[in-house]
Amino acid sequence: MRSAKFLLLLISLNVVSNIVIAAPPTCPAHLGGDCANGSGEWEGEFFPGIPKIKYEGPSSKNPLALSGIMLKRDSWKKMKDWMRFSVAFWHTFRGTGGDPFGAPTKMWPWEDGTNSLAMAKRRMRANFEFIEKLGVDRWCFHDKIIAPDGSSSLLMETNANLDEVVALAKELQGTKVRPLWGTAQLFHHPRYTHGGATSSELGVYLYAAAQVKKAMEVTHYLGGENYVFWGGREGYQSLLNTDMERELNHMARFLEAAAAYKKKIGFKAQEPTKHQYDWDAATAANFLRKYGLIDEFKLNIECNHATLSGHSCHHELETARINGLLGNIDANTGDPQIGWDTDQFMMDVAEATLVMLSVVKNGGLAPGGFNFDAKLRRESTDVEDIFIAHIAGMDTLARGLRNAAKLIEDGSLSELVRKRYQSFDSELGAQIEAGKGDFDLLEKKAIKWGEPTVASAKQELAEMIFQSAL
Amino acid sequence: MRSAKFLLLLISLNVVSNIVIAAPPTCPAHLGGDCANGSGEWEGEFFPGIPKIKYEGPSSKNPLALSGIMLKRDSWKKMKDWMRFSVAFWHTFRGTGGDPFGAPTKMWPWEDGTNSLAMAKRRMRANFEFIEKLGVDRWCFHDKIIAPDGSSSLLMETNANLDEVVALAKELQGTKVRPLWGTAQLFHHPRYTHGGATSSELGVYLYAAAQVKKAMEVTHYLGGENYVFWGGREGYQSLLNTDMERELNHMARFLEAAAAYKKKIGFKAQEPTKHQYDWDAATAANFLRKYGLIDEFKLNIECNHATLSGHSCHHELETARINGLLGNIDANTGDPQIGWDTDQFMMDVAEATLVMLSVVKNGGLAPGGFNFDAKLRRESTDVEDIFIAHIAGMDTLARGLRNAAKLIEDGSLSELVRKRYQSFDSELGAQIEAGKGDFDLLEKKAIKWGEPTVASAKQELAEMIFQSAL
Amino acid sequence: MRSAKFLLLLISLNVVSNIVIAAPPTCPAHLGGDCANGSGEWEGEFFPGIPKIKYEGPSSKNPLALSGIMLKRDSWKKMKDWMRFSVAFWHTFRGTGGDPFGAPTKMWPWEDGTNSLAMAKRRMRANFEFIEKLGVDRWCFHDKIIAPDGSSSLLMETNANLDEVVALAKELQGTKVRPLWGTAQLFHHPRYTHGGATSSELGVYLYAAAQVKKAMEVTHYLGGENYVFWGGREGYQSLLNTDMERELNHMARFLEAAAAYKKKIGFKAQEPTKHQYDWDAATAANFLRKYGLIDEFKLNIECNHATLSGHSCHHELETARINGLLGNIDANTGDPQIGWDTDQFMMDVAEATLVMLSVVKNGGLAPGGFNFDAKLRRESTDVEDIFIAHIAGMDTLARGLRNAAKLIEDGSLSELVRKRYQSFDSELGAQIEAGKGDFDLLEKKAIKWGEPTVASAKQELAEMIFQSAL
Amino acid sequence: MRSAKFLLLLISLNVVSNIVIAAPPTCPAHLGGDCANGSGEWEGEFFPGIPKIKYEGPSSKNPLALSGIMLKRDSWKKMKDWMRFSVAFWHTFRGTGGDPFGAPTKMWPWEDGTNSLAMAKRRMRANFEFIEKLGVDRWCFHDKIIAPDGSSSLLMETNANLDEVVALAKELQGTKVRPLWGTAQLFHHPRYTHGGATSSELGVYLYAAAQVKKAMEVTHYLGGENYVFWGGREGYQSLLNTDMERELNHMARFLEAAAAYKKKIGFKAQEPTKHQYDWDAATAANFLRKYGLIDEFKLNIECNHATLSGHSCHHELETARINGLLGNIDANTGDPQIGWDTDQFMMDVAEATLVMLSVVKNGGLAPGGFNFDAKLRRESTDVEDIFIAHIAGMDTLARGLRNAAKLIEDGSLSELVRKRYQSFDSELGAQIEAGKGDFDLLEKKAIKWGEPTVASAKQELAEMIFQSAL
Repeated sequence: MRSAKFLLLLISLNVVSNIVIAAPPTCPAHLGGDCANGSGEWEGEFFPGIPKIKYEGPSSKNPLALSGIMLKRDSWKKMKDWMRFSVAFWHTFRGTGGDPFGAPTKMWPWEDGTNSLAMAKRRMRANFEFIEKLGVDRWCFHDKIIAPDGSSSLLMETNANLDEVVALAKELQGTKVRPLWGTAQLFHHPRYTHGGATSSELGVYLYAAAQVKKAMEVTHYLGGENYVFWGGREGYQSLLNTDMERELNHMARFLEAAAAYKKKIGFKAQEPTKHQYDWDAATAANFLRKYGLIDEFKLNIECNHATLSGHSCHHELETARINGLLGNIDANTGDPQIGWDTDQFMMDVAEATLVMLSVVKNGGLAPGGFNFDAKLRRESTDVEDIFIAHIAGMDTLARGLRNAAKLIEDGSLSELVRKRYQSFDSELGAQIEAGKGDFDLLEKKAIKWGEPTVASAKQELAEMIFQSAL
Repeated sequence: MRSAKFLLLLISLNVVSNIVIAAPPTCPAHLGGDCANGSGEWEGEFFPGIPKIKYEGPSSKNPLALSGIMLKRDSWKKMKDWMRFSVAFWHTFRGTGGDPFGAPTKMWPWEDGTNSLAMAKRRMRANFEFIEKLGVDRWCFHDKIIAPDGSSSLLMETNANLDEVVALAKELQGTKVRPLWGTAQLFHHPRYTHGGATSSELGVYLYAAAQVKKAMEVTHYLGGENYVFWGGREGYQSLLNTDMERELNHMARFLEAAAAYKKKIGFKAQEPTKHQYDWDAATAANFLRKYGLIDEFKLNIECNHATLSGHSCHHELETARINGLLGNIDANTGDPQIGWDTDQFMMDVAEATLVMLSVVKNGGLAPGGFNFDAKLRRESTDVEDIFIAHIAGMDTLARGLRNAAKLIEDGSLSELVRKRYQSFDSELGAQIEAGKGDFDLLEKKAIKWGEPTVASAKQELAEMIFQSAL
Repeated sequence: MRSAKFLLLLISLNVVSNIVIAAPPTCPAHLGGDCANGSGEWEGEFFPGIPKIKYEGPSSKNPLALSGIMLKRDSWKKMKDWMRFSVAFWHTFRGTGGDPFGAPTKMWPWEDGTNSLAMAKRRMRANFEFIEKLGVDRWCFHDKIIAPDGSSSLLMETNANLDEVVALAKELQGTKVRPLWGTAQLFHHPRYTHGGATSSELGVYLYAAAQVKKAMEVTHYLGGENYVFWGGREGYQSLLNTDMERELNHMARFLEAAAAYKKKIGFKAQEPTKHQYDWDAATAANFLRKYGLIDEFKLNIECNHATLSGHSCHHELETARINGLLGNIDANTGDPQIGWDTDQFMMDVAEATLVMLSVVKNGGLAPGGFNFDAKLRRESTDVEDIFIAHIAGMDTLARGLRNAAKLIEDGSLSELVRKRYQSFDSELGAQIEAGKGDFDLLEKKAIKWGEPTVASAKQELAEMIFQSAL
Repeated sequence: MRSAKFLLLLISLNVVSNIVIAAPPTCPAHLGGDCANGSGEWEGEFFPGIPKIKYEGPSSKNPLALSGIMLKRDSWKKMKDWMRFSVAFWHTFRGTGGDPFGAPTKMWPWEDGTNSLAMAKRRMRANFEFIEKLGVDRWCFHDKIIAPDGSSSLLMETNANLDEVVALAKELQGTKVRPLWGTAQLFHHPRYTHGGATSSELGVYLYAAAQVKKAMEVTHYLGGENYVFWGGREGYQSLLNTDMERELNHMARFLEAAAAYKKKIGFKAQEPTKHQYDWDAATAANFLRKYGLIDEFKLNIECNHATLSGHSCHHELETARINGLLGNIDANTGDPQIGWDTDQFMMDVAEATLVMLSVVKNGGLAPGGFNFDAKLRRESTDVEDIFIAHIAGMDTLARGLRNAAKLIEDGSLSELVRKRYQSFDSELGAQIEAGKGDFDLLEKKAIKWGEPTVASAKQELAEMIFQSAL
């Protein structure tokens, strides 16, 4: 296994330590020294020097402007229909720059060093100012990331805290902004050491169910379009001390109960997108098929994770698409020389073009979208770096969409593919594709045809066409 | 993709270049200089200095004897029921030591430098002498490896050659030896450049079907217990020039036709084990489920391939077992520092112990078995090295079985696992496992139970117990 | 790069977040609720249920006893001369089970939730009780791990704290226990975000130098046998914003100053072992040679890191040994399916045997040794698990030494190697090895000799001999 | 080890099996059926439908034209000074499409199915027609690839064959074309199973020396600018049967003899570029330093190999450059999902831009250059595919050079880097860089300075600037 737990190794798991280590070590003077109880109010803007981000055209050198070339035939608005960008609350507002090797490095001025309810609300205000300045209209959240636990981990007190922050979020959302999705964080707390739905402890299974139930309710209340199941701890460390079959059965029971509850509360128009809960898209599909859940869930493909499991992101997207399961994309990328999730912002235009080719083939992602499940490098410590990174990520995908459009309009690539398979567009080919080609018939035809001709696959030509569109 | 083609990346593909480069560069004088037509007869033994291999006990230092400790409670005969060892004709008799970097290095004395029918028969005699001296009773083969193609690749002439060699094999098999499985080689010939069942060329699909039909017939005729589908070319190089969905549909049509033909010719008692035709066991299972083929096929797990796809061999075996798909094992291993199939003989007792734990849990592998799909290193060029390698492979698995038996009889490990999950052995646990735990009930219980207790997973203890059995 | 920073990617870096997150979330009642200032005293034993660990022979099933078979010809005492085991203070006493995905899980009863000076002393007492019960006589430490920083990061106050804890450690060491080595932690604090010796900030270079100077002094004071340079942050994230040449020059200047200071304070008899400060042993050797530091430093090989850089641990040990640089070993291991440092206890006897073969060839490791730079899995949360893991690690290496001795005494393997190269033991071979074989001579001999003979490398036989010793 | 043999795992090793399997299976009718002795002459052009390749500007859709945008300030001729492109004879004319899984697929019309001297000459004519039409003026070769061995492997007869083909090449070269480099192939023949310079057999060492001596002579005779040492077999499979120290000493003796012979025959003005003879650039540098060969050799960096050893190509180039060892580049690339050398043509403009940034910093590569050590995919079987692949490779590097020029002229990136290190541009910084900052001084300054300031590394901004230049 590449991950601590092989099932449900997911997106953005690095967020988890934030609750503990999010706070800067000292109390900022500008908050009036009132850090102990976190009641210090924040006056004015959170991002005072940052303008509303605008599109300034492809030759702009302003790092605080968008330069991704718009489609000739399209307005920026139309481009947004393809993109459906979403800000990830955890990386953007709870990411601290801490890593297994080092302490937090982000000293955001609005943080007061606590995980209090007041701090949670101030942070939520910063989130909506950021969204407004960036010009997107979706956001994603985990329950534990937006509100603190109650004392003694009592569920009811914890849920009350969540309700209070969610009420503020609903107010700040206004009429235009909505969650792309919400989720429950079932991996950071020590109780989830052995997993949530697949924990060896019955009590943990119960707690996880209660937490997911609540997270589904608040996502629904906020007008969320999807609900995601994460599974960072659903797996195993060693088969020697694990009953894998029993754990998988428990996970299936858990998801069945969630699907039933979704219907009960009337989460109606939208399919809950299902996170990639396992090694790769095909493994997830096998699980859903085995337990009869294939129609209830879709997959949330994370590019960084695709490469960690030995696939290209494009392969995972196409595998999900062909299985009818492409629901959502985590728009991040890894480092080819690093063997773990680095969750960098995607800045490679070639990769973005391949991603957008799949998205266009899929007819878009709605009700899913692109979540910027990506974080600033630990060494990037200026407030403006948060904007720069998101802008570069948006521009990269915009360029990818433009290139995909160019390739599709040009048509050479799809023509090259069509020609390769044209022998199957014959009568005999159609018969085989309809399942009517038995071995006796095929042998007879093979003897008649003799040695078949085999054409060049023209791979270098295909790559040349692709590169020339970039 | 880690392989040339991502689907059906399979076992022992390295064998493929043998047909072309199998022959030693010069004509051995002992064959009377009659190499041109390959009619030179081979007198006497093929392995004159090698005795019939015997078990000499654990302290034996004789490299030409077995030393794997027999189970106290068992005879060697009983051990063989678990093992069902099989000699892989291709690596053992067509492996040349050639690699992408170098020419053949094996100059076996019985080879005359040709790929003639006479040479094919002489080689088959060597195969059965080898099997007899080694003391196993199963072998595996590809069609193209045991008999040469007819001129001009005419199917009927090619099939006639195959029939002639197969008739000899049937005679040499006697009453005790049988194929563990046979298969059709659909990847070496240039016609299969773009795949067989997934080729972009209809003519190739036809040819592949005719070849599989024949290979199924001769495997059945020889009393083979299983038939394996290989797929070394069934996949893609680049998605830019590939229609993955159409290719996968073709593969499903192909396997449906094969399953139908199996019934037609009365390949009755045995399930054809299906090779791991994709990235990993879960991906293969997803394919079989999607196309309704899950009851027709089982998987052939190759340990070397498991590690290439980022899994442990043990994980793949357990995944296949839990899905009811564990059919056969290719007993080889890779090099953890090398990123391709090296197909070495498995010589790590710890790995063999994990393998045998899965096999015992599966109630054995029959009608499947262990095929020594492994080859001598290129630098190992003595005839005796063939025996040494097989003996070491057999001993390693025998020690693995002994250790697995010790662990099972001792019971500490399974007790440690049982205890971990005991909270689910309660009334509430049983209710959940039966699919009767909805979210309302679970939340109620969670509130009542409060913060759950979480026990140590005792992983180091589990590893200590495991290691002490080796 | 596989690590955050490519230079000096080192051992046990996972320890770093301990200072921040080491504390259990609540104040243990047994400490009298006096957690706020950390002055609560700890009465009696830290490990009340654990006996002094003894050797009980190979068939012992007691997990709290040693069972590694002693060498026939040797006493346990003699075995310790080879082993020179050392407890790693950071993993053992500051490891919390936190990971990038989750909160701490270890709730050791002696911890009071603070990083106070009082807590640091209590922890040091636990360390020496552990060492005494385990029966080893060496330990390793980082400066920041054993004592808290002074307020406001003032160097002088911080150094005073360190002096106070070090004085206690000196008293507790008694006459038998000594540090195997000490080091300065230059990677956890945000000031080291861009590295210490290779930081882009001059002020950080100064601070790092002052910190190393102090750490060398206290290691010397405690009778430490070696001083180690870590470099978890000495490297780069992206070449786009990095001047690699200048950073490497700074690192060389830094190590020169350290080598000079070592002589000044009379760290005389022992060579400071140098940590593997780069990708692998050969890269480290190139750096030391380029800057004329090859005689001042040795390497500290970490097995887990060796595999992360694509080598086997055995290869790294032999490369270091051949270059005369093998100084110390971090006795840990990784997970072949995981692409980052997991720092597990080494429990694979085959790997341990290869390690011990190199150690014996090197004539032992003194003044270096084996540091258990390994941590409990996150899910292992019982106090006894700390003992079980160390005992299994010690037993594994003891078995490795026994097997290495068996192989050396048996002599078959070294004889197999000697024979392979015997053609160079001729007069002509000696001439060439002495650098007196020019191309004219060699060509003349080649023409005379004709096609050379090439013997089998007998790799499977070598593996069979190796495995039979386990 | 990732390679069969860890030392000298090199460029383009896949070429090696060509000698054996290069020929198409049947004799082309157009050659008059005179295949047996290979004397059939080839009339007219080898590439009749292919025009002389021209630059048609960036918007060209003609796959048989160059479209890489020329530098504004430069002529194409000037661009060629940076590029110094070279055709690799082996991949282009001896590559067959065979792989470990399959038979040859390239049926080039001029091949007659033999490895005769006549065929060697015809192939050489095709090579120079290709070079002329492509418009480059350098080529690279191995001795065994351009001429057949004499019967019975007699050195003198083999050398005579080589002389005959080399004489023709000299004539065809005319006044404009020269070898970028030549080399001796020491890995394909079974005699090199255990290596050449590091073989365990003295006779093989002799033979290798004679072969290198001859290859140096003919490269010199053809006006070659460099001589490369390959080492595809110089390494080991298992340390169990290997004396690594002795093998490395032999390799050093061998290279010393080569360096001496170079001077003797007056290979004067040019440095022989040394191939990357080991794991990575740093390992190679360590070897050269240890044996005092650092001034005699430079490195030939292969991008595909860089990624296989866990580095980025850019890292390897910069490491070589900083060590003063950057000599030559093999312009190929691998597949990030494949763990072996695929030697594809480099078609990623972002990667090409990073490569060219290093080349420009190095002041160009002369007397080295870019060798297209890349091969057509096995499935690309049209003659025009050879041109398409080379054109795409040339265009990609041309775009990379243009982008590098844009980044250098723009200056934002180098300014960002300069600013990061500016604190070292102070008096104290200069003192430290001059080696005059001892620990006493540094500690004093650290205490005075207090907690250092640490700026953001602006990595996302650096990436944004880089991407916007593409």
